[in-house]
Amino acid sequence: MNRRRSFSLVAFFVVALMFLSLSARADEGMWLFSDPPRQLLRQRYDFDPSDAWLDHLRLSAVRFDEASGSFVSGDGLVMTNHHVGLSSIYKISTPDRDLLITGFHARSLDEELKCPNCKLKVLISIEDVTERIRSAVASISDPAEAAERRSEEINSINRESKEKTGLHGDVVSLYYGGLYHLYRYKVHDDVRLVFSPAESVAAFGGDPDNFEYPRFALDVCFFRVYEDGRPAKTPHHLKWNSAGSKEGELVFMAGHPARTERLKTVRHLEFIRDATMPAVLDQRRRREVSLTAFSQRSVESSRRASMELRKCQNSRKARLGMLAGLQDPAVMKIKRAEEEALRRAAAERPELAAELETALEMMDQSLTAFAEIRDDYEMIGEGEAFQSILFSFARTLIGMAEEIAKPEAERSWGYRDSNLDSLKSRLLPDVLVYPDLEAVLLADSLSMYLERKGYDDPLVRAVLAGRSPPQRADELVRGSKLADPSFRCRLVEGGAEAIDACDDPMIQLARLVDDPAGDIRKIYERRVSEPQTRAYGMLAQVRFALFGESIYPDATHTLRLSFGQVKSYRLDGEPIPAWTTFAGLYRRAEDNRFAAPYSMPSIWVERKDRLEMDAPLNFVSTNDSIGGNSGSPVVNRNGELVGVVFDGNLPSLVWDFVFTQEEGRAVSVHAGAIIEALRKVYDADRLADELQRGSRK
Amino acid sequence: MNRRRSFSLVAFFVVALMFLSLSARADEGMWLFSDPPRQLLRQRYDFDPSDAWLDHLRLSAVRFDEASGSFVSGDGLVMTNHHVGLSSIYKISTPDRDLLITGFHARSLDEELKCPNCKLKVLISIEDVTERIRSAVASISDPAEAAERRSEEINSINRESKEKTGLHGDVVSLYYGGLYHLYRYKVHDDVRLVFSPAESVAAFGGDPDNFEYPRFALDVCFFRVYEDGRPAKTPHHLKWNSAGSKEGELVFMAGHPARTERLKTVRHLEFIRDATMPAVLDQRRRREVSLTAFSQRSVESSRRASMELRKCQNSRKARLGMLAGLQDPAVMKIKRAEEEALRRAAAERPELAAELETALEMMDQSLTAFAEIRDDYEMIGEGEAFQSILFSFARTLIGMAEEIAKPEAERSWGYRDSNLDSLKSRLLPDVLVYPDLEAVLLADSLSMYLERKGYDDPLVRAVLAGRSPPQRADELVRGSKLADPSFRCRLVEGGAEAIDACDDPMIQLARLVDDPAGDIRKIYERRVSEPQTRAYGMLAQVRFALFGESIYPDATHTLRLSFGQVKSYRLDGEPIPAWTTFAGLYRRAEDNRFAAPYSMPSIWVERKDRLEMDAPLNFVSTNDSIGGNSGSPVVNRNGELVGVVFDGNLPSLVWDFVFTQEEGRAVSVHAGAIIEALRKVYDADRLADELQRGSRK
Repeated sequence: MNRRRSFSLVAFFVVALMFLSLSARADEGMWLFSDPPRQLLRQRYDFDPSDAWLDHLRLSAVRFDEASGSFVSGDGLVMTNHHVGLSSIYKISTPDRDLLITGFHARSLDEELKCPNCKLKVLISIEDVTERIRSAVASISDPAEAAERRSEEINSINRESKEKTGLHGDVVSLYYGGLYHLYRYKVHDDVRLVFSPAESVAAFGGDPDNFEYPRFALDVCFFRVYEDGRPAKTPHHLKWNSAGSKEGELVFMAGHPARTERLKTVRHLEFIRDATMPAVLDQRRRREVSLTAFSQRSVESSRRASMELRKCQNSRKARLGMLAGLQDPAVMKIKRAEEEALRRAAAERPELAAELETALEMMDQSLTAFAEIRDDYEMIGEGEAFQSILFSFARTLIGMAEEIAKPEAERSWGYRDSNLDSLKSRLLPDVLVYPDLEAVLLADSLSMYLERKGYDDPLVRAVLAGRSPPQRADELVRGSKLADPSFRCRLVEGGAEAIDACDDPMIQLARLVDDPAGDIRKIYERRVSEPQTRAYGMLAQVRFALFGESIYPDATHTLRLSFGQVKSYRLDGEPIPAWTTFAGLYRRAEDNRFAAPYSMPSIWVERKDRLEMDAPLNFVSTNDSIGGNSGSPVVNRNGELVGVVFDGNLPSLVWDFVFTQEEGRAVSVHAGAIIEALRKVYDADRLADELQRGSRK
Repeated sequence: MNRRRSFSLVAFFVVALMFLSLSARADEGMWLFSDPPRQLLRQRYDFDPSDAWLDHLRLSAVRFDEASGSFVSGDGLVMTNHHVGLSSIYKISTPDRDLLITGFHARSLDEELKCPNCKLKVLISIEDVTERIRSAVASISDPAEAAERRSEEINSINRESKEKTGLHGDVVSLYYGGLYHLYRYKVHDDVRLVFSPAESVAAFGGDPDNFEYPRFALDVCFFRVYEDGRPAKTPHHLKWNSAGSKEGELVFMAGHPARTERLKTVRHLEFIRDATMPAVLDQRRRREVSLTAFSQRSVESSRRASMELRKCQNSRKARLGMLAGLQDPAVMKIKRAEEEALRRAAAERPELAAELETALEMMDQSLTAFAEIRDDYEMIGEGEAFQSILFSFARTLIGMAEEIAKPEAERSWGYRDSNLDSLKSRLLPDVLVYPDLEAVLLADSLSMYLERKGYDDPLVRAVLAGRSPPQRADELVRGSKLADPSFRCRLVEGGAEAIDACDDPMIQLARLVDDPAGDIRKIYERRVSEPQTRAYGMLAQVRFALFGESIYPDATHTLRLSFGQVKSYRLDGEPIPAWTTFAGLYRRAEDNRFAAPYSMPSIWVERKDRLEMDAPLNFVSTNDSIGGNSGSPVVNRNGELVGVVFDGNLPSLVWDFVFTQEEGRAVSVHAGAIIEALRKVYDADRLADELQRGSRK
């Protein structure tokens, strides 16, 4: 593995500068396990993790599809968040046995419930393949050709790895192409549900408590991986520590943060703050108001809108937090100082300085270009004007017919033979479409389109066809037969000819906007997204050339190590303690008369007296984390599990763009609370024993 | 009174043209009782109301502060909507006896509950005073001076009327100054509550059913006016007709429509459609989302936000309906045809044609000017950037201190001695201010200000003082002592000196924006509102010169007569029957498991079997009506009361700007349903007897 490069004097100067600014965010970083922040840990926490310590933590960490977990016994037991396990738990529920309401508790191995299509991965090894990939493209000057060649080489490496080791290979591009690492995973595909609380307890506080702290959620569930029908042996698993960590104690997280955008230039962040984020929020608010008003019509309407409404509220709340962060001058000051420091560092190496200025200039130009085409791109190119499942069916059907008519090599990526099955699987099953809800959402988005582009726009006129937005939405939804899967199926099979002959109004609408949408997307790619990709590649490589791996790469949904400390904070002048307790949980429920989202199963009410009221329930720490970290184990310097992270507070929402440690915190469930609940509420001593002993027997 | 003028040939041609367009909206009009649409009624309904018929209806109509009602017995019994009586019912409720929840039923005169400050008016006579006012200003050329002189003359007329007749005089400007009529009212100030159902029944369906149809609300309540401590004798009262009206039958409303804007030019309506209405809706949606999210925090938060949230939802829903109307090309086509017809009519009289073009040109210029200053005017001038009760206290305190320092004659109107008491009454009482709610709403509006004006605006920077919107809102709300009435009282008494010395952050903020706000308001008056007032005055006078009173004047919150018919319609292709029934009410409640807003008092559940399930409950008619008509009696051609109007459906919301009869409908409670409920649910036979007999005994 490539260790840190030697530093130039300049780089040293810059790093010194960065450290100055780091004083406010010293626990920053989603570090590679192949290159942990040893120096920082020594300086700040006098801690020097051994290779064995790191390997054990990495091999105990488990990757869920889009999130994280960890082995917590030698017999394949895996812990993650309830909200990470949610889709599996939902799938194995039945109308008679809704596990989201009842919770689940297997009292023996026999009762553990198999979860179809659930695959867990463990990162077995990391190999630097940068040189191999670079040499494969070294002689190619055309960027498009180079990109194609690079993809092929990556595919070969992944395939060879699988053949040679039997492990699943996955080449990861770090630092926007500064490094390429081959990650090899062991895949577990026999995964069974062991225990999950009711969702009311796991997501106690619902939307109002989402992204908030103090918090009172038992957001945890347990699975077990099997091999050959028996619990898998997992010697690398985390030792349970019910005592947890004290205020100020060093803690680590090992998980799979999905995506950060911390390289964003100041100009780009301003653009997000002033243009795109307000527009997205506007769209979310409109949708939320439409869904809320629709929900209130009847019990059935409320049921129909509930999943969409929940998604919408979550997204609105997350984005409001991000916007508030970007609107905080103190946050922007950090980003400006970073950019300035990078400029000063590059100044000493003219080729890097030139590269940097070119990259910044390209970014500025791309944003100017984006500002010009934004309305058309968002409304038509991205299809925001058409918030309708039926419209998206129509758009996919038309794209499919057009592309499939071409020879395979000329098709867009999404329509190659290898992707057709996944495309069809999105089109063909019996997706529930509620015409009343469709019409409400489409009417609102058509109105938004009209408001953004005005009545004089010829495409707006053609789309509305002489009707008002609600009238037009109604006529499109009522007139379309696309809700019928067999109708869609016939159109898929009939190809371009069937589409051309089709007089379904939604198909006709999608055909009307197909060309303008394609045109604006091409302009967007040429003038916005391609220049941005290249500019960020250049920026990342300038940073990498100056600082190497002393700077962690942006998150890539792969295993990272973050460090921090359990730490209280002040918010709006109020002190916020590092822990909440069971007493706090009951107080919050009682204050809200146990009404949803503050309800709890009756067993929690009946057994209240058994619980230690002052025992910690949730806690916060300064660990750098983001979506995808959900379910990551929190361990102390002995590598013992002290909690499991499940959320970040409101001030942490800006961590997409910049880490801020004054008020931002990750929120975890305390290891002791899990044992307390298992033993005293659920009589799940068997499971609690396994956790505390580290094995079934 | 001035009767219709003789028509020129041109006017005849134009009226013919208007009739063509009227075919789709033939029941249009909020007609003066002094000039009823006799010709239209004859043509369309073969009905010729006698003067006695009209006088009886006028003298049976009752004006509430901002709405309508009618006498329904010879003993002073008045019927109106529950939502019209709401504020009185709310005021006489106590924590122990919340009449909104329990409803109220006086079983004898003794039990009737006096409503403080409730005044009802009856229109006794109408006198044309146009000539007197015109001659008073005839020799004055300066417009400002003329306006002042006109106000003085109007005050004199009102005063003289009072002295001469003992009746309350109120000169009304019709056709934007085309006519002035003196309305003389008898005022009843001893008003007592007789009967009101629980709000759950009166406003059954809450926000989701608001402005909707089919509808199932018993939105009705009864008061009685007293004279000398005894029920007033009211010989003019409406005869009750429990049978109601059949489909297609002619019905009238006599009530007080508040304000229509049917003279708006096409360009102005487009401006509202494309600029101001979307902006207002955006602001309402933001507020609604903030309030909804706040509500969900806790039971107490929900209580704190509930009134504001209800107002916000009502306003959002009304405006969405108006916008949908304006976005309907068919609606705009009507307005374009009207404008074209007016142009053609004026073409034959050069002086009117010139006046018309000048007016239209002035309107266009005022809108161009408004587009330029809109952000500053709305955000700072109107104060939308500062959604905070504390801020509005601060702004009023500063304005008061500044103005009171001036000699009386130089003060703005609102700060003259005669208005100081009302100003103080808004500042001094113990208004409830919830800091958490204040901070949430202020943070959102500051963010909106930032989004609209951008970070480079110097005033934005000064307002935010280096903080993010939520941080700044928090610091302003927590730092301010203006929630304390005694603090406000000290500032009122201390005058300019106390304000200048005050270091309260909200006072300082209001001081910071005071000058810019004053400046932008002055620009707005000079470039937008004054030119518009003049232009609409000119337009109205051109119309009046051409058509005289053959065209009804825009609504002015004074008594009007509208006609129409009970009539089913089609919405989105579905037939909507003219009536709903008690069966429908129970079905809707049951479908929603009696959950709010579909709950009903237990007595309604217990006594369901007593009710005639097929009896009509609510019904719709084509009568032209608007806010302020609430509580208007609906009478048939015999002058018998067949219902009481309480709402309009969604398609009627555009009636602010243009009357459309295809789908737009007024919604009323059926007279028979009121008797049915009184007798069978409430055992209120005494009241029902009085209604059906027309007197107490």
